[in-house]
Amino acid sequence: MKFSCEKNVILEAVGNVIRVIPAKASTPVLEGILIEIKDNVLCMTGSDTEMSVQTTISVESDESKTFIVNAKTFNEMLGKLENGTVEFEIDEKGILHMVCGVIQYDLPTREAELYPTVPFVEKSKTLKFRKKMLHSMLKQTLFSVAQIETRPILKGVLFDICGNELYIVTTDTFRLSLRNEEFENTFGEDFSFVVPGKAINELVRIMNTDDEEVRLGLASTHAVFEFENTVITTRLLSGEFLKYKTIIPKTFKTEVVLKTEELKRTFERASVLINEKMRTPVRVNFEFDTVMTCCKTPEGSNFYDEIKAVIQGENIEIGLNNKQITDVLSVIETEEITMSLNSPVSSVCIKPVGKENALYIVSPMRLKVN
Amino acid sequence: MKFSCEKNVILEAVGNVIRVIPAKASTPVLEGILIEIKDNVLCMTGSDTEMSVQTTISVESDESKTFIVNAKTFNEMLGKLENGTVEFEIDEKGILHMVCGVIQYDLPTREAELYPTVPFVEKSKTLKFRKKMLHSMLKQTLFSVAQIETRPILKGVLFDICGNELYIVTTDTFRLSLRNEEFENTFGEDFSFVVPGKAINELVRIMNTDDEEVRLGLASTHAVFEFENTVITTRLLSGEFLKYKTIIPKTFKTEVVLKTEELKRTFERASVLINEKMRTPVRVNFEFDTVMTCCKTPEGSNFYDEIKAVIQGENIEIGLNNKQITDVLSVIETEEITMSLNSPVSSVCIKPVGKENALYIVSPMRLKVN
Repeated sequence: MKFSCEKNVILEAVGNVIRVIPAKASTPVLEGILIEIKDNVLCMTGSDTEMSVQTTISVESDESKTFIVNAKTFNEMLGKLENGTVEFEIDEKGILHMVCGVIQYDLPTREAELYPTVPFVEKSKTLKFRKKMLHSMLKQTLFSVAQIETRPILKGVLFDICGNELYIVTTDTFRLSLRNEEFENTFGEDFSFVVPGKAINELVRIMNTDDEEVRLGLASTHAVFEFENTVITTRLLSGEFLKYKTIIPKTFKTEVVLKTEELKRTFERASVLINEKMRTPVRVNFEFDTVMTCCKTPEGSNFYDEIKAVIQGENIEIGLNNKQITDVLSVIETEEITMSLNSPVSSVCIKPVGKENALYIVSPMRLKVN
Repeated sequence: MKFSCEKNVILEAVGNVIRVIPAKASTPVLEGILIEIKDNVLCMTGSDTEMSVQTTISVESDESKTFIVNAKTFNEMLGKLENGTVEFEIDEKGILHMVCGVIQYDLPTREAELYPTVPFVEKSKTLKFRKKMLHSMLKQTLFSVAQIETRPILKGVLFDICGNELYIVTTDTFRLSLRNEEFENTFGEDFSFVVPGKAINELVRIMNTDDEEVRLGLASTHAVFEFENTVITTRLLSGEFLKYKTIIPKTFKTEVVLKTEELKRTFERASVLINEKMRTPVRVNFEFDTVMTCCKTPEGSNFYDEIKAVIQGENIEIGLNNKQITDVLSVIETEEITMSLNSPVSSVCIKPVGKENALYIVSPMRLKVN
């Protein structure tokens, strides 16, 4: 059985599916890529227990064939070939021969029967989004997905659809990210679902940001994202997500407008004094027209910086988590942000200035009395 | 006590000394940089038990002062400052205040008395080399310094001076690298010494490759390299180095001329099938005008490639260590190399074509009968 295609085409397809495949699995089959060839179309699948990524490319083939190859070795072999057409042949022993010019690699394959089946998802709802829009919404919220297992639902990204508005929400209980955009809700009803952060991570990595569409099919337990030649199937997380609307403060005593980059640089400077083990709070004073930032360690190191800002309302001092702030400031694309505060023990609200489509909440940290 | 200098000047000086300082030492003093300020000159020293690096820069200062700062924190703080002049001040509590614009960092210092003294080296011999020449000689041999402790002398780089010729030699017993160049032996006698690989590593990293001189001062137990504003002091390794001249084969049954890059790419392709745990030999066949390379794993993977070459003498098949070959081919700068062979169990000799100043020896690997 023979097939052939351009090296760069098949290498890109492998790049799409390989990240989801575990490097060390309980059986070698799960470290493999499933390759299905039929009617000059090659479909490759990479999966773990939660999700799968499928990509199809055109090949020239003389018959149908389905087999498994080790993902890591196949990827490395293809990467070392010259650019050009690669001729593939599977012999009667199940060895895949790859020839490109005088270079030849042989790689044993495995029986496709051993591969876990990708669930067939009977879609009860279908939605369409602009890739560019969805990509930006997910990229700007993904960072605050919970990393630990205490509340599994928070390891996911909430898609909350209200009328023609899509709300994307993530939270690890210490902070919350919210992005919203208008879209055409063809289903006509309000509903919500939670997609595992890992699947969203792969979606953001693989999906380009052109103006084409990504189609989302939904069943009770699974979601399917489709765009161009790629299909990402993932199980949904079940359980109740945080009731995020109730925790967003409505009124504030202090509102501060700041240059995004200036504030980010200040917090990056403070980071020299902060390590993972001892997460010292950054002490921030909002006074008249100045934001004063300082940080000190028990060893006697100290940091002080100040930047100009437009501050409306009461002066306030608050302790903030350095990483939580830089994470937010790294995804905001506007030149200025608004920080809205109520008290040293209340959450802080950060929004891009000039856009009403994002909101970030971070918790304060307790400050020691000076 | 106050001093000031440009941020980039002091940051570059810290970059010179920091790599030699252990990240985790038995006492905090050894994780520090020694800073000595006198007559508007700042000298900083980083050291471990074997070697030290000293760099001097001009500063503006109002009095003399010697102190220790934590290398990592000092480096990070300086790195986060804006470009421009930094004002430093040490207060009566020994806190170093750094001010650059509105940004301020404070860092506790330690007493300089606790710092180990850099040995004063009474130089019995002094030599001068072109930096460019010495840099190229060391860079092209450093990779084969022994990494393990079985013969400590082989963890060093041999400087062997015969008349007006300098030979630089490194070996880990499985392979040997030799570079030689003419220079002016002002001392007038033949002699040799072995410098620890770690010190040479730092020398190659810090020393630029312009046409200026590097001065080498030698005592019985130490060597001192001096260039521009930097001094590297290292103890020498004692013991007998390998008698390298006796192990270089003089005659060969097969001489092969090959394109350096082509051969390197072939061995890199073979590397897909080779891992550190199971170092499979690369089987190389030199036949008439073709070099055929193949490699197979017990799991059934296979690699085959061939390149054209000019082969004089007997056809030969030999097993080679993939990494040993790519290491050599990575440092050779000529377009072509000569591989000289005698038998499947004899060492292989690799030389750049058109230059008589380098020679590399690699051991063969035993091949299983096909």
